[in-house]
Amino acid sequence: MTRSISILGATGSVGASTLDLIRSERETWRVVALTANCSTEELAKLAMEFEAEIAVVGDESCLGGLRDALAGSGIEAAGGAQALRDAAARPVDLTVAAIVGCAGLAPTMAAIEQGGTIALANKEALVSAGDVMTAAVARHGATLLPVDSEHNAIFQCLQGNAVEDVRWITLTASGGPFRTWTREKLDTATPGQAVAHPNWDMGAKISVDSATMMNKGLEFIEAYYLFPVGLDRLRIIVHPQSIIHSMVEYRDGSTLAQLGPSDMKVPIASCLAWPKRMDTPCEPLDLPTIGSLTFETPDETRFPATRLAREVAHAGGGAPAVLNAANEVAVASFLAGHLPFTRIAVVVEETLNRYSPSAPSGLGDVLAVDREAREQALQLMEHA
Amino acid sequence: MTRSISILGATGSVGASTLDLIRSERETWRVVALTANCSTEELAKLAMEFEAEIAVVGDESCLGGLRDALAGSGIEAAGGAQALRDAAARPVDLTVAAIVGCAGLAPTMAAIEQGGTIALANKEALVSAGDVMTAAVARHGATLLPVDSEHNAIFQCLQGNAVEDVRWITLTASGGPFRTWTREKLDTATPGQAVAHPNWDMGAKISVDSATMMNKGLEFIEAYYLFPVGLDRLRIIVHPQSIIHSMVEYRDGSTLAQLGPSDMKVPIASCLAWPKRMDTPCEPLDLPTIGSLTFETPDETRFPATRLAREVAHAGGGAPAVLNAANEVAVASFLAGHLPFTRIAVVVEETLNRYSPSAPSGLGDVLAVDREAREQALQLMEHA
Repeated sequence: MTRSISILGATGSVGASTLDLIRSERETWRVVALTANCSTEELAKLAMEFEAEIAVVGDESCLGGLRDALAGSGIEAAGGAQALRDAAARPVDLTVAAIVGCAGLAPTMAAIEQGGTIALANKEALVSAGDVMTAAVARHGATLLPVDSEHNAIFQCLQGNAVEDVRWITLTASGGPFRTWTREKLDTATPGQAVAHPNWDMGAKISVDSATMMNKGLEFIEAYYLFPVGLDRLRIIVHPQSIIHSMVEYRDGSTLAQLGPSDMKVPIASCLAWPKRMDTPCEPLDLPTIGSLTFETPDETRFPATRLAREVAHAGGGAPAVLNAANEVAVASFLAGHLPFTRIAVVVEETLNRYSPSAPSGLGDVLAVDREAREQALQLMEHA
Repeated sequence: MTRSISILGATGSVGASTLDLIRSERETWRVVALTANCSTEELAKLAMEFEAEIAVVGDESCLGGLRDALAGSGIEAAGGAQALRDAAARPVDLTVAAIVGCAGLAPTMAAIEQGGTIALANKEALVSAGDVMTAAVARHGATLLPVDSEHNAIFQCLQGNAVEDVRWITLTASGGPFRTWTREKLDTATPGQAVAHPNWDMGAKISVDSATMMNKGLEFIEAYYLFPVGLDRLRIIVHPQSIIHSMVEYRDGSTLAQLGPSDMKVPIASCLAWPKRMDTPCEPLDLPTIGSLTFETPDETRFPATRLAREVAHAGGGAPAVLNAANEVAVASFLAGHLPFTRIAVVVEETLNRYSPSAPSGLGDVLAVDREAREQALQLMEHA
């Protein structure tokens, strides 16, 4: 049986892995929409290979290039924010929401409003617009499948079980490249050191988030919205090998864990085939060769990000959006060489102290909070 | 909603843990039959506490004592093999089959023939009578819930998944108290050293089986009958901490593992509440305090038992019953100080070489194979 799919963010890393998996089961899938920000050549090439109905660029100024690249293919081309939302609203069996950052919010919401199944790889969407998004999911009867390896692990460990029976959800964290660094040494950390992640090959922003542990903080907030067990049943442990991707402990004392390689194809395949399974080219798990899995309690003195995330989840309302926005601005400043590593969390915390917006009631409010928080964080850094 | 339960082997360790859990949810359960071999005082006390319909001793000569102990309670008393089978055949929602050894075979089969749900803690039953038992389960539409911690872990990791999607089932083994001993030192191992198991508090026979790794061999055969994935998808790894109780790897590269304390209450509670969960008094899993989980490939030169088990599962027919019987006789001889530790596996292998019965077609055949294999193993040891 053929299944239809749209991929929002087809030229990014999650998009590429998704299309690789679809390539291996080409006859199973009918591709409806593929989108990118402005990579017109690549997008056109993918749209033609997968015989998509429509290709969309988010940046309207790139539409001309996309039209040229698709000339004669019979594939529709469109551009701009409204075109993205329209493409995301085309009915499909599965939408992969993989646009990075707040740009992905509106098209993801458009897909949710169709009441379909959404494989969600856009972390910021759930962090910034958690209440708005989960309310829309409930209202429209949509299904969210988490793509993030940790949340996908939790989702798998919850299958066939009731949320009421959960004693603990434990997110694992690699601890990042500075796990063993002293507070003093952290002050000297450079962007080059921060982006050298031990286990995952990732972009610069998320690598810095991994080094500050803010990545785990954002995932903690995500987990809070995805799995309604309450904040006092959610915790983080450091597991440097990143083999156990996360765990769920039940009230009988059973803990279920999902383990696997550090390869996004595993959770993506789990979403594509859900509730079944599909083949991936990933190597089998070889624990005797790995030898040892270790675990530590997070140190929130050296890495305050997870504490901030917990506080923000507790506060709710606009606070998670403020944390996410301030963090993006601070990380950009660190990557540009303007902010010391240990100041990233300080900027986030100070922005949270200065700016406490009321709870966003819709997407427009979320985007307004996001803009204002960026502004406040920038001002803070200028006056520091 | 009240559920009815019978416990075959109520005075053993699994029986006691089961009754402890029932005690904590007393209003949920109606106890039908409790059985023991001959512990009349204890059995009568339990039958009165739990208001059982009937108490049965397997050893008919103990029936008088049981009648005396139950006098005036209004609880039926019965004794002997046929009485055990009759009690096991009383319809209940759940039968806990926890009689140790071949004595448990007939009553377990009687429960299976009622088509109910059986929490199976009798390892020997499935090893010796695997084909006969799984055929009866299929014929009568019964459901087997494995109580052994490893098989219960696998059962939990398979929930909501299809057996066809399994790439590997991995049984974990502690490696036993002699895991790091040389071949030469193993020759000198005493019964006292063998029964000092690092992680579990168990009886003498199963402790020796853990030391020889025959316990894992028997569990391998059990897993082969319980989870029809085929021998080439079943493997054993050594995991000295016994925190991960077993794992299932799927074809997408996801591995699900069940972790928990070394406490039989966890898998028993999982069976009692299945497909839901119930509380146990077990401590939450604290991986940062545990610190490290390690893994090794089994060494089948020093510990040939798992190789023998795999060969026996491959051979099928009466071979697993021969292995189980020969092992029981050899372990008894080792515990009595008459057989060196490293000869246990040799006696098992030589018995398997000498005696290749045709496939048992029913319970009577299985018991006959069991008797003959014991005889052969005894002869072997006498003439050694």
